[in-house]
Amino acid sequence: MSEKEALVVFTPSGKRGHFPHGTPVLQAARKLGVDIDSICGGNGLCGRCQVNVGEGEFAKHGIASSWDHLSEKGFVENRYQEKRNMKADRRLSCQAIVEGDVVIDVPADSQVHKQVVRKSATVRDIAIDPAIRLYYLTVREPDMHDPSGDLERVYEALEQQWEVTGLSTDLHVIQVLQTTLRKGKWSVTVAVHNDERVIAVWPGLRERIFGVAVDLGSTTIAAHVCDLMSGEVMVSTGLMNPQIRFGEDLMSRVSYVMMNPGGDKEMTEAVREGLNNLMVEATKEMDMTPHDIIAATYVGNPVMHHLLLGIDPTELGGAPFALSTDNAQDLTPRDLDLNLHPGARIFVLPCIAGHVGADTAGVALSEAPYNEDEITLIVDVGTNAEMLLGNKDRILAASSPTGPAFEGAQISGGQRAAPGAIERVRIDPETLEPKFRVIGSELWSNEEGFEESIKNTGVMGICGSGIIEVLAEMYLAGIILLDGTIDGNLATKSSRIESDDRTFSYLLHDGEPRICITQNDVRAIQLAKAALYAGARLLMDKLGIDHVGKVKLAGAFGSHIDTKYAMILGMIPDCELEKVTSAGNAAGTGARIALLNKASRQEIKDVVRKIEKIETAVEPRFQEHFINAMAIPHKTDPYPKLSTQVKMPARVMPEKSSDEGEDSGRRRRRRRG
Amino acid sequence: MSEKEALVVFTPSGKRGHFPHGTPVLQAARKLGVDIDSICGGNGLCGRCQVNVGEGEFAKHGIASSWDHLSEKGFVENRYQEKRNMKADRRLSCQAIVEGDVVIDVPADSQVHKQVVRKSATVRDIAIDPAIRLYYLTVREPDMHDPSGDLERVYEALEQQWEVTGLSTDLHVIQVLQTTLRKGKWSVTVAVHNDERVIAVWPGLRERIFGVAVDLGSTTIAAHVCDLMSGEVMVSTGLMNPQIRFGEDLMSRVSYVMMNPGGDKEMTEAVREGLNNLMVEATKEMDMTPHDIIAATYVGNPVMHHLLLGIDPTELGGAPFALSTDNAQDLTPRDLDLNLHPGARIFVLPCIAGHVGADTAGVALSEAPYNEDEITLIVDVGTNAEMLLGNKDRILAASSPTGPAFEGAQISGGQRAAPGAIERVRIDPETLEPKFRVIGSELWSNEEGFEESIKNTGVMGICGSGIIEVLAEMYLAGIILLDGTIDGNLATKSSRIESDDRTFSYLLHDGEPRICITQNDVRAIQLAKAALYAGARLLMDKLGIDHVGKVKLAGAFGSHIDTKYAMILGMIPDCELEKVTSAGNAAGTGARIALLNKASRQEIKDVVRKIEKIETAVEPRFQEHFINAMAIPHKTDPYPKLSTQVKMPARVMPEKSSDEGEDSGRRRRRRRG
Repeated sequence: MSEKEALVVFTPSGKRGHFPHGTPVLQAARKLGVDIDSICGGNGLCGRCQVNVGEGEFAKHGIASSWDHLSEKGFVENRYQEKRNMKADRRLSCQAIVEGDVVIDVPADSQVHKQVVRKSATVRDIAIDPAIRLYYLTVREPDMHDPSGDLERVYEALEQQWEVTGLSTDLHVIQVLQTTLRKGKWSVTVAVHNDERVIAVWPGLRERIFGVAVDLGSTTIAAHVCDLMSGEVMVSTGLMNPQIRFGEDLMSRVSYVMMNPGGDKEMTEAVREGLNNLMVEATKEMDMTPHDIIAATYVGNPVMHHLLLGIDPTELGGAPFALSTDNAQDLTPRDLDLNLHPGARIFVLPCIAGHVGADTAGVALSEAPYNEDEITLIVDVGTNAEMLLGNKDRILAASSPTGPAFEGAQISGGQRAAPGAIERVRIDPETLEPKFRVIGSELWSNEEGFEESIKNTGVMGICGSGIIEVLAEMYLAGIILLDGTIDGNLATKSSRIESDDRTFSYLLHDGEPRICITQNDVRAIQLAKAALYAGARLLMDKLGIDHVGKVKLAGAFGSHIDTKYAMILGMIPDCELEKVTSAGNAAGTGARIALLNKASRQEIKDVVRKIEKIETAVEPRFQEHFINAMAIPHKTDPYPKLSTQVKMPARVMPEKSSDEGEDSGRRRRRRRG
Repeated sequence: MSEKEALVVFTPSGKRGHFPHGTPVLQAARKLGVDIDSICGGNGLCGRCQVNVGEGEFAKHGIASSWDHLSEKGFVENRYQEKRNMKADRRLSCQAIVEGDVVIDVPADSQVHKQVVRKSATVRDIAIDPAIRLYYLTVREPDMHDPSGDLERVYEALEQQWEVTGLSTDLHVIQVLQTTLRKGKWSVTVAVHNDERVIAVWPGLRERIFGVAVDLGSTTIAAHVCDLMSGEVMVSTGLMNPQIRFGEDLMSRVSYVMMNPGGDKEMTEAVREGLNNLMVEATKEMDMTPHDIIAATYVGNPVMHHLLLGIDPTELGGAPFALSTDNAQDLTPRDLDLNLHPGARIFVLPCIAGHVGADTAGVALSEAPYNEDEITLIVDVGTNAEMLLGNKDRILAASSPTGPAFEGAQISGGQRAAPGAIERVRIDPETLEPKFRVIGSELWSNEEGFEESIKNTGVMGICGSGIIEVLAEMYLAGIILLDGTIDGNLATKSSRIESDDRTFSYLLHDGEPRICITQNDVRAIQLAKAALYAGARLLMDKLGIDHVGKVKLAGAFGSHIDTKYAMILGMIPDCELEKVTSAGNAAGTGARIALLNKASRQEIKDVVRKIEKIETAVEPRFQEHFINAMAIPHKTDPYPKLSTQVKMPARVMPEKSSDEGEDSGRRRRRRRG
């Protein structure tokens, strides 16, 4: 070892090496592969490469010695400290020079691959490693004696200043390159996708870029604009899916396509326009424009996925429910007529099967059951309930046709979860008197001030979680029997049990409107919960298990319901109550992970390929489980004939026409079973 | 060797191997890597895999034996013979079964990599190997028990039926895939680009695909629509460049941009619209539409190249003449707003330097001087003369500012090469009387019936080749002296020598209009030819040679002039006359090569990178050569001061403004030297 070399040790990585005196710390870090961020390439501009100098004495050759031999702070560091409030004990590693043995600590916020800690302790953190990176460059000016293209001198700078090679470039970058280089006086920041392609160029130093993760639901579209460098969510926003004017639910939208040639194009246009409007709103909050969004990821159910991509969803409307593709899509804004940065890169997560969409792929990525030993059941409840079951060895997926009852549709007093909707219910088992809470108020209906607290909305109806609670409470109070019948004998005990022709109902709220739970309402929920339960059981059969380790409920409904009541009603397989948790908007989280971590994209592609797809429609066991699960909570033995006729809920999809031309105008309902 | 195996020998490749009886010939060929074409994948549909059975007896183990052991023709072959006129001695190699030893001859028209023989014996043939291939597939139908995307079953078929793997697909293909598969009853033909990406899908069997090679000139746009499988030129067509309304020549178009903000976009739109109209016309002749064009290649000078690509050409208008990029571009029709098949792949050849464009790259690809031992000078004469000089060891390129004189501009009676233009001239050295020929007539002006033969046009002017000839003939007749002066003393000998103030002119045609060759005309051609010669000499200096092996003249002018007169005038360096040839529209041929042969694309990229770019503007030797070359033919020693003041021709480009904002409206002329 030459006398002029010094030992440099980086913590926390522990990487170390010998370097000549005079080596900048950042250069030493690069040589050793130590993860220190930098955009400006060591020009003392971006301030991302901050480090701390190790303190205290360390032994070397058995002798205690000082390990803090760095150059004094110079002009650049002092200016940065003054103008940008760099802490006094911090150094810019591009400016600090090794002058002897030194221990350098790289704080978490100076690493490229920072971690975003998610709130819930049960889920993994997101490692920030987006597919797009920024590089600040000083580009050589053109020289008539050695003619070369401006772009080729950008490549030269990327190679010399960043060791990035083998690049190609989008045409729109080439179109603005010459003016940008001259505007930036030959200093520019370029964005490079996958270390392969230059997708944007800005004059001077650009330090932040943004992306958006979108969860494209049938009803609502939710978008999270994130800082791609920090992972921070800048704006979360949403809007109603403008496709609603073509049909409230997926099935009616597919019908619309079948009945209206070109209807798919109308809906594609509608959702894309909605997304464009949403981006204008979201970026306005950040004093930016949609052109500042350079990355986007999308999840959605198969019909939403196909319509976003401009694919006619007709094939998803009838057996064999063939997806156009079950691959992820790497696209550009132009592919989807989206108004983002022209170089933006779009990643659409893959659909899993005809009824299990990219939203479920997002759930899988968020909850990562494939990394765990314990067998997890994840259910995303909507009009269909998409399910994942398994662990690191195997993952199965299916969709059960629960119908829209859980969302308050097909329920006499049902409504969406919105202010004025009953969401919590308790029934006194002695008096059969109810109390409830309404979205928008913290008070129970029997508490003082309740009427005042809801004076803006009144009590308008009952939402999904309210229905689950009222049914479970009715069951616990003995109002509902095992087979789901409302017990008319109780009419003598309480005037809330009312007679409707041949059946009975329970008066939950005697207001305007009156909110009753009818026998039909109970049947609708029985059908929905039986479908959900049967789907889960079917997957358990396939896996050869009769008990799941834990259950996660995802989606708005799944996050909102009290898991205890879900258990009481028998919506989900038996499981220790504390092992039943909410996963929140896991689909949206999955989109965010794909946005912020490029490796996760390959991960979800691999996982989706591995997932075993189960089509409930062709599984006889599904129907058997379904019949059994009609009981409350449910039974595993064959159940005696129910007192009312049970029809399985169908995927209420228009039948696929055998002759496209003539029958496309007709609308038929297909029933399965 | 098992008794049931047979020896199969393919000619002309000589490849051979043993195969079990019952093996289809095509399968044996594939195993051995014998080049037999097939689109339908052995389904007896496309008829591309035709072979002949070897005749006569061949010796095996020293014993003469029969080598024609194939199965009898079956239904498929007989039908193909009947319906498609397959010759009786031909077999479909996918249907013919090996039943014993056999010699199979693969005719040239059944090979994938056919050769297109070019007319000129001096140039290489084009090996047909386009970047796009067709594959006919039978795709498995969807199955609810094993759900998968339609696209993934297309990939499966490509792998199983064609051993093509690792593909991705354009979104527009996915958008039409489901209906196409069903329309084709699960048989489709897909087009795959570079064995990487599916870019088109058609129902059933599609046997032909087409591409277009475009030479984008400042004045005219020429397009050749080719069958990508055979290389055949289906339609050749052209139109005036619609940008002409913004300026006749390149310089005035660049000025237009400088004077009119957004002017580049207007011109980009104009040329793209022109290309779209041209494609409609061209494909109409073939009973097709532009959507049948799935590949396109473009060449053009740097300004045309930039405007096609939507790049502001302002930087090309002033020193240092920086290109935005000197790379080739792989694009899609959407990038350029071109109306072709949405999956079409566009290849734009690379520009070489600020004055040496993709058209010269096309010339290089066509003439391939880099493959030869002999040193070749290739000159493409236009407003500038682009030159390539070199051989397999080194290639140099430069552009000389010849100005538009060779194209008939700045010449008193000059006009474009069109009917009515004088193109050939002879002058009797005794009488000084001329005779000439006019485009549109085969007769000399002194022949009987000449007036009648040109009655539609009359004699309208003189085109580039005519000017060269008349000047050379004037020189040979002694009318022009060595220094270019028209000798006024001859006015006594012939009334055709006329006095114009202080100079003299030669009356070539006393009609309406009168066509005279003035002293200014001679000076304009002297300047042009001196620039051309000086550029060539400069490259020869750089290469350290004083003699070139051969000279090729490319472009319309270069192809049209009589090389003898070019030599007499001293336009080009001395060379044996029979070694001076025309290369025709070599730029367009280069575009066609790039269209039909994918390897040529990498070849031209590599060549352009290797070419040494010489900027004549910064080479003092260029000016020295230029002055010397003003003489007729030219001299290598310092030339005595010319009788009139010589100004070097400038690249008449508007000066680059130092302050973009304020000066962009001004138009200045810059003179060099």
